[in-house]
Amino acid sequence: MNLDEALSLIRGSVRGLKAYHLEPEEYSVKLNQNENPFDWPQEIKAEMGRYCVERPWNRYPPFIPDDLKAALADYSGAPRGGVIVGNGSNEMLLLLLLSFADKGTPVIFCQPTFTVYRLLVEGLGASAVPLSLPAGLRYDLPAIGEAVSAHQGALMVLCSPNNPTGGSLTEDELREILKRHRGFCLLDQAYVEFGGFDAMPLLEEFPNLIVTRTFSKAFAGAALRLGYLAGNPAVIREINKIKLPYNINFFSEHAASMLLRHGGLLRERVATIKAERDIQYDFLLTQPFDAVYPSEANFILVRCREKTRLVEALKAEGILVRDVSSSPLLDNCLRISIGTPDENEQFRATVRSFFSGSLRRNAWKE
Amino acid sequence: MNLDEALSLIRGSVRGLKAYHLEPEEYSVKLNQNENPFDWPQEIKAEMGRYCVERPWNRYPPFIPDDLKAALADYSGAPRGGVIVGNGSNEMLLLLLLSFADKGTPVIFCQPTFTVYRLLVEGLGASAVPLSLPAGLRYDLPAIGEAVSAHQGALMVLCSPNNPTGGSLTEDELREILKRHRGFCLLDQAYVEFGGFDAMPLLEEFPNLIVTRTFSKAFAGAALRLGYLAGNPAVIREINKIKLPYNINFFSEHAASMLLRHGGLLRERVATIKAERDIQYDFLLTQPFDAVYPSEANFILVRCREKTRLVEALKAEGILVRDVSSSPLLDNCLRISIGTPDENEQFRATVRSFFSGSLRRNAWKE
Repeated sequence: MNLDEALSLIRGSVRGLKAYHLEPEEYSVKLNQNENPFDWPQEIKAEMGRYCVERPWNRYPPFIPDDLKAALADYSGAPRGGVIVGNGSNEMLLLLLLSFADKGTPVIFCQPTFTVYRLLVEGLGASAVPLSLPAGLRYDLPAIGEAVSAHQGALMVLCSPNNPTGGSLTEDELREILKRHRGFCLLDQAYVEFGGFDAMPLLEEFPNLIVTRTFSKAFAGAALRLGYLAGNPAVIREINKIKLPYNINFFSEHAASMLLRHGGLLRERVATIKAERDIQYDFLLTQPFDAVYPSEANFILVRCREKTRLVEALKAEGILVRDVSSSPLLDNCLRISIGTPDENEQFRATVRSFFSGSLRRNAWKE
Repeated sequence: MNLDEALSLIRGSVRGLKAYHLEPEEYSVKLNQNENPFDWPQEIKAEMGRYCVERPWNRYPPFIPDDLKAALADYSGAPRGGVIVGNGSNEMLLLLLLSFADKGTPVIFCQPTFTVYRLLVEGLGASAVPLSLPAGLRYDLPAIGEAVSAHQGALMVLCSPNNPTGGSLTEDELREILKRHRGFCLLDQAYVEFGGFDAMPLLEEFPNLIVTRTFSKAFAGAALRLGYLAGNPAVIREINKIKLPYNINFFSEHAASMLLRHGGLLRERVATIKAERDIQYDFLLTQPFDAVYPSEANFILVRCREKTRLVEALKAEGILVRDVSSSPLLDNCLRISIGTPDENEQFRATVRSFFSGSLRRNAWKE
């Protein structure tokens, strides 16, 4: 068999994908991935370092990470027996698509949103039903209602607070959707610690709701790649059948259990980030952006007709932000993560200089 | 929506699965999961412990683990640019099924083999084409040849050395299959360090061959959940599109890179395990088993009409082996992993007592 013949055997839905990619870049201030800017303290990490040495590496992790699942249920309010853990909420999303989306199944999602939804929906050969957010980029309940009526049994994927726009659904809005929707609804709450409402209490009432969460954002554990999903225990038992056995390594499992015992520190830091978000938002409004979108997450979306030069000016100072302008409806948009107070101040100083003209003039000259 | 209605929305292919499960059990000698019985030395683990403390937990791993991939290519002989890493070879198997198996695509595999193949094939709604191994449980080339002719474009999954039978394909046999097969062939070489031939050199010639490997067996890294696959770089670029971004945590990534620098120690230990396998095999032949199957892996399959009582007698001594008797063709079969010399001797002492009558009599009485 020659290479062309081999390539032709790969599913068209996969070959048709544009690979998701992020170029590594040098930086001193990293405001491009919505990470928590505060690392965990040395003494907590050192505890894990000791566990690394004690724990045998040659033995499989437990078949079911019962302790971690129980701790997650206690922490999040998810039902006991209704939790699955995986390598980031990405794995949880894939698991749900494998459970609910047959070839051609409609999957409704709003756009712009987290780009991996569409990548996986299309890659698996399900049928993407994107609903464009209206001007203002808030959730559009009438449009969701219409899609729900038009696509009975569709899977719906909602992100609240939404990445990269920052807006949330209210509890009433989600209830309204869940009452009308005759399919499953995956609610990605990766950013919920920063704002919006907590959907876990709705799980008892709505067996067609699944909530996903992550350790990558508020929990300052992006390096661990740990996410989880929660739902009705009878539904979770079925979904669990298609989960890969031994999907979680011992390190991430143990580290996550450990971090859940430090909720106090987490809450303090989240409060700092939220206060910084307010300072950053107020500042951004004072600058000549074309739009600044209110956010309940740890990032703020702005629109700026000079975005290419602004990105360059920031890069020159070692500050990375995320250019999301290739997403639908996001012409000229940048997403700026909330960093430490110092980092945010560096960002503001650079933006101030840029708009006050000096950096802008320099950029023009190049 | 009520719960029954919700459950009915889960794909039939998933609901129909019997969950893969392994009950946790107390043990002193663990010969049930084909792990390498020798853990890594403290000083190597301590190096990782230090990295745990230094490395920020709040930051994502690199988008592409280039260093690890390059080290894996160097170690294994896989082509540079032709490697993907994942959470165990399970994730690699799923990735390949997502890349090649549409709904209803025939997937040929021999049985008995690693049970996760069938679980995923059926769960994804592809069409399982199991070929039963003949008496002796060696690969049956004529049957594979017929299946290849009958199912043009099928995906083929072969395991060599095969779990749980221990037999391997020869290079000539694999070449013969690859020449005739008009689809992709996934060759799972989880146990290749213990025997059989290394298929990596065939990748250049056969763009429809993909090889998977793992750190869970010879590499004594089951806790890390790290596997990789290798293939023609142009094919790998396509498959990579449907891989989840950031699938590997920083711990497993760094630990794997580190372990690859200790190939000398690995080879020594693999040599010990192989020598122990020979001792174990010779011993098993002296006992009244119904069959003892020759193995090129780190386990041996036996058939024993008294297997239930033998398992109980072993358990009473804290020795775990794997009862694989529910697999097709494996009535009364047990799979015994190779442990340390001490562990293997404990196993032999218990088996000797059992067959010499004393333990057998006790078991009868209960």
